[in-house]
Amino acid sequence: MLYLLGLFSIGVFAITSVIATHNKNLDIFSVVFLGSVTALGGGTIRDIILGQYPIYWVDDLWFLWVSVLVSLTAFFVTKSLSNRYQLLLYLDALGIALFSITAAAKTLELGFSPSIAVVMGLITAIFGSILRDLLTGSPSLLLSKDLYATPVLLGTSIFVGLNYWFPHLTWAVPLCIGVTFAFRAFAIYYHWHFPKWLCSR
Amino acid sequence: MLYLLGLFSIGVFAITSVIATHNKNLDIFSVVFLGSVTALGGGTIRDIILGQYPIYWVDDLWFLWVSVLVSLTAFFVTKSLSNRYQLLLYLDALGIALFSITAAAKTLELGFSPSIAVVMGLITAIFGSILRDLLTGSPSLLLSKDLYATPVLLGTSIFVGLNYWFPHLTWAVPLCIGVTFAFRAFAIYYHWHFPKWLCSR
Amino acid sequence: MLYLLGLFSIGVFAITSVIATHNKNLDIFSVVFLGSVTALGGGTIRDIILGQYPIYWVDDLWFLWVSVLVSLTAFFVTKSLSNRYQLLLYLDALGIALFSITAAAKTLELGFSPSIAVVMGLITAIFGSILRDLLTGSPSLLLSKDLYATPVLLGTSIFVGLNYWFPHLTWAVPLCIGVTFAFRAFAIYYHWHFPKWLCSR
Repeated sequence: MLYLLGLFSIGVFAITSVIATHNKNLDIFSVVFLGSVTALGGGTIRDIILGQYPIYWVDDLWFLWVSVLVSLTAFFVTKSLSNRYQLLLYLDALGIALFSITAAAKTLELGFSPSIAVVMGLITAIFGSILRDLLTGSPSLLLSKDLYATPVLLGTSIFVGLNYWFPHLTWAVPLCIGVTFAFRAFAIYYHWHFPKWLCSR
Repeated sequence: MLYLLGLFSIGVFAITSVIATHNKNLDIFSVVFLGSVTALGGGTIRDIILGQYPIYWVDDLWFLWVSVLVSLTAFFVTKSLSNRYQLLLYLDALGIALFSITAAAKTLELGFSPSIAVVMGLITAIFGSILRDLLTGSPSLLLSKDLYATPVLLGTSIFVGLNYWFPHLTWAVPLCIGVTFAFRAFAIYYHWHFPKWLCSR
Repeated sequence: MLYLLGLFSIGVFAITSVIATHNKNLDIFSVVFLGSVTALGGGTIRDIILGQYPIYWVDDLWFLWVSVLVSLTAFFVTKSLSNRYQLLLYLDALGIALFSITAAAKTLELGFSPSIAVVMGLITAIFGSILRDLLTGSPSLLLSKDLYATPVLLGTSIFVGLNYWFPHLTWAVPLCIGVTFAFRAFAIYYHWHFPKWLCSR
């Protein structure tokens, strides 16, 4: 189940990447390459930092193929996808919620400490899009005031806390995916931003 | 033989990097640093993703020294090199052909699957220049319409296919280096680009 | 002692990052994230290239916590810190001196060759700020004419040379930290730059 949701998120990330790079006038190779980097990049950096070899998409080719084929398909239907951009924003929110909580759970299972699990949840969820923005010369989410990473940070922290104090909670994963998603969805819907005093300058 | 061709490609990549960064007004340290990143970066990312330690230039210092010394020399003779830019474009085409096919062959030998071999051929050939362009704030080849990565993708795919269906073909390596080089060389000579319908927007 | 100096340098790097990104109008999450990347990024890339797992801040959480908490504190007192920018430049010089020489010493201890130790000293000292500048879209130190990396290159080269010819010199580490720091400090104070003939164009 989590595996299928993981593949689903990979696909969603690939699609949002194709839409995000649509106005850049790229050729089909670059579109598919950037879609795959967005979808697979965060988990790749997580596995490299933790030294978990083989890296997940080298080990299980489904992740690679889903990101390549979904990016390819999305390239040809970008126009109709763009019309559903609002829907995609929420699917992306579901994607980062799934990615971060499952990454944090995997990190804890491997025996790493709670703070490392939070960092890995964060890296898995946000580094894919950060890499894409670097490669296309666009300002990354770190430069925007959108509440994108903060819901992830909150959700994974709650998850790690629950795991620490109540080690046998089976519904901690779905609960925290829900919390992360809900926080991000509200941030999209109500245009939440950081208050001024929490911004430099 | 392949080893010497590898060192030769490292040198060519270092030289094209020095020429590419010539108009950036960099000091000699940055020029040599960026030349080495261009020459060694792609293979470094490949070895890290595959978890192949020690990384090739840490293991065999010749690669590091060739890239440093060639960059250093190129810095002082950039002017005469720039006059031979056309020649260098074709040497660079030979470099990416050599890099990608030998990387794909090495990846297959290590027991990874054909699709991973294609991805590694691609990463080895193009990530060096992508890293250089990131570090100098230049638009990378992903943003250009040049047929640069596509010949590599085609050549390594043919190589991997040949290897899969005819495992004992000794001339698969030179053949596919030739195909990749020829495709890229034609793309340079005839200014080939992707047709409009294969470009976003 | 070296351990405490390492934690101290991590803190200094986090603070200089907060000041460097002050005029970018970032939210508190991005400020702390970029502070931590600056402080921990160089050593992370070093450990990944050498294949030294677990990576130092995954193994010992103090490094992570110091960089997060110092960045957080610095965010709220940036104004008073900015007034001491000159002091911070010199503390940063001390930081890169400490980072590079201890990284080179660690690399030699692990059995790698002298040239690899020099490269790792360099990477550890400069890649944190390079990553931060990439992520904020600022021109990195590679594009500036400041003598920033060169003192590090000189200091670590002297250290590695001393180690090679006089293997049992106990004061090689403090001496070379001093040399690197002094060279960088003079470069700041006297605005040293590369002479024109050592710059491209």
